[in-house]
Amino acid sequence: MGAAPDDFFHATQVRVRFGDTDPYGIVYFVTYFRWCHRAIEEYLRAVGLKPEGTFRNVEEGFGLPVVEAWCRFRRPARYGDRLTIRTRVKELRERAVIFHFEFFPEQGQELLAEGTATLVAITRDWRARELPERVRQALQGPTGD
Amino acid sequence: MGAAPDDFFHATQVRVRFGDTDPYGIVYFVTYFRWCHRAIEEYLRAVGLKPEGTFRNVEEGFGLPVVEAWCRFRRPARYGDRLTIRTRVKELRERAVIFHFEFFPEQGQELLAEGTATLVAITRDWRARELPERVRQALQGPTGD
Amino acid sequence: MGAAPDDFFHATQVRVRFGDTDPYGIVYFVTYFRWCHRAIEEYLRAVGLKPEGTFRNVEEGFGLPVVEAWCRFRRPARYGDRLTIRTRVKELRERAVIFHFEFFPEQGQELLAEGTATLVAITRDWRARELPERVRQALQGPTGD
Amino acid sequence: MGAAPDDFFHATQVRVRFGDTDPYGIVYFVTYFRWCHRAIEEYLRAVGLKPEGTFRNVEEGFGLPVVEAWCRFRRPARYGDRLTIRTRVKELRERAVIFHFEFFPEQGQELLAEGTATLVAITRDWRARELPERVRQALQGPTGD
Repeated sequence: MGAAPDDFFHATQVRVRFGDTDPYGIVYFVTYFRWCHRAIEEYLRAVGLKPEGTFRNVEEGFGLPVVEAWCRFRRPARYGDRLTIRTRVKELRERAVIFHFEFFPEQGQELLAEGTATLVAITRDWRARELPERVRQALQGPTGD
Repeated sequence: MGAAPDDFFHATQVRVRFGDTDPYGIVYFVTYFRWCHRAIEEYLRAVGLKPEGTFRNVEEGFGLPVVEAWCRFRRPARYGDRLTIRTRVKELRERAVIFHFEFFPEQGQELLAEGTATLVAITRDWRARELPERVRQALQGPTGD
Repeated sequence: MGAAPDDFFHATQVRVRFGDTDPYGIVYFVTYFRWCHRAIEEYLRAVGLKPEGTFRNVEEGFGLPVVEAWCRFRRPARYGDRLTIRTRVKELRERAVIFHFEFFPEQGQELLAEGTATLVAITRDWRARELPERVRQALQGPTGD
Repeated sequence: MGAAPDDFFHATQVRVRFGDTDPYGIVYFVTYFRWCHRAIEEYLRAVGLKPEGTFRNVEEGFGLPVVEAWCRFRRPARYGDRLTIRTRVKELRERAVIFHFEFFPEQGQELLAEGTATLVAITRDWRARELPERVRQALQGPTGD
């Protein structure tokens, strides 16, 4: 099952806001996970999937919860900074998709943080199922096949 | 419609956590509003109402959203501090209840912050309705009539 | 002391994200207060003030904490919605500035929520002081006098 | 360098609050990471370390940032649920400590989620250094050697 080509990624930007930092002004590690979810949302929109109908879809009878997440934090970011998140599909399986994230300063190439998030397709009663076909196709990316 | 007597209040405690402050280590004002909601939850439990069946109750066909909130912040609190919240019903109306909150340091009598939150009863289609009788009675407090 | 003219406002947009709602998918009232702060940040940038040097400025010896905040919530917004925030300076005092916020759907004129936030200028040791001159001038707006 | 014995853990409890869930009422995965940090705070207090002087200590010239975090989410938890977090030191290195977390329902033995967080000791200028001796000793646990 083909994934999107490695060189396809979606870039989105976030600003470090009041409330995104720890008491010392450094971005709180939890904030990066929130940004990961936001990056997935933007990625979905970029490939034609509405997040509101993708993370849970009552009509089509599926959900797509995050079942695993990981991040490594390499350099501190601070209140007011703008960050660029590069998001790509790292792996596309029958029943799951793994996103990969890289966080960079708006200007500059030093990696601030990176992470992954795994989402699995489930039925209404929380059992694993195959990814819905339209979701799978969209996640293969514009040139994947 | 009688409210709970002025001297009835519920006290609950919160700890300032990582992520609750601004970049300078002072509690972010938004955090107080989050604590207000938590104080309402604890107040509800204290008078015998499960929050999960009170803020929205599909079976009984009502909701109880917050329609107005206000806080004044008088003194800074910091990461690691423990605060006591004193919560009382300030006013009980046909269709609404107004809670009042006071935040104190765990030790000490100086008011750190105070606030109010107004909740109105609504029907399934978001129109105002009377407070459900069992909710109204519970909010009148242990000695209300 | 003149305030910015009533017809000057700054508009910014926010998207309702995962984690911004209550358990029923409606925007959690606390989220609006977070957006109010974000709207202040964007307002400051729009009038030439860096938020990182305005909410607290160690070199110039002042801070600008939020000492009071209020919001009224009129209509529900939901996950995935885009909102427009119209922010203006409601009042500019010797030692304080009051911002006013209106939240609208991206398309449409029905007010979803409105609010105010009062910020006061303080010294390093948390005593009230006059607004720094450069801050006051910037807040008077492009055509204020 | 010995770690705490495998059977030593600290248990703390959290309640799923308004604002801790996704729009469908299921605990948002990001919330678990926030709870992980809270569990570390409680663990530190349990072994005699004040979090306020442990995550950053200007006088002693060290910091202890989270440099890596991971969680797996196995079963959904919902608004109003109470969870027990079992926290232990998984590994204690010269310059780092890895905490391990398990989330259980208040009643019941089914694992809801588990995770790890790695904290490294750094100097004032963000270079790796050895864990301060008093921190290392406290983290070895009551019977570690």
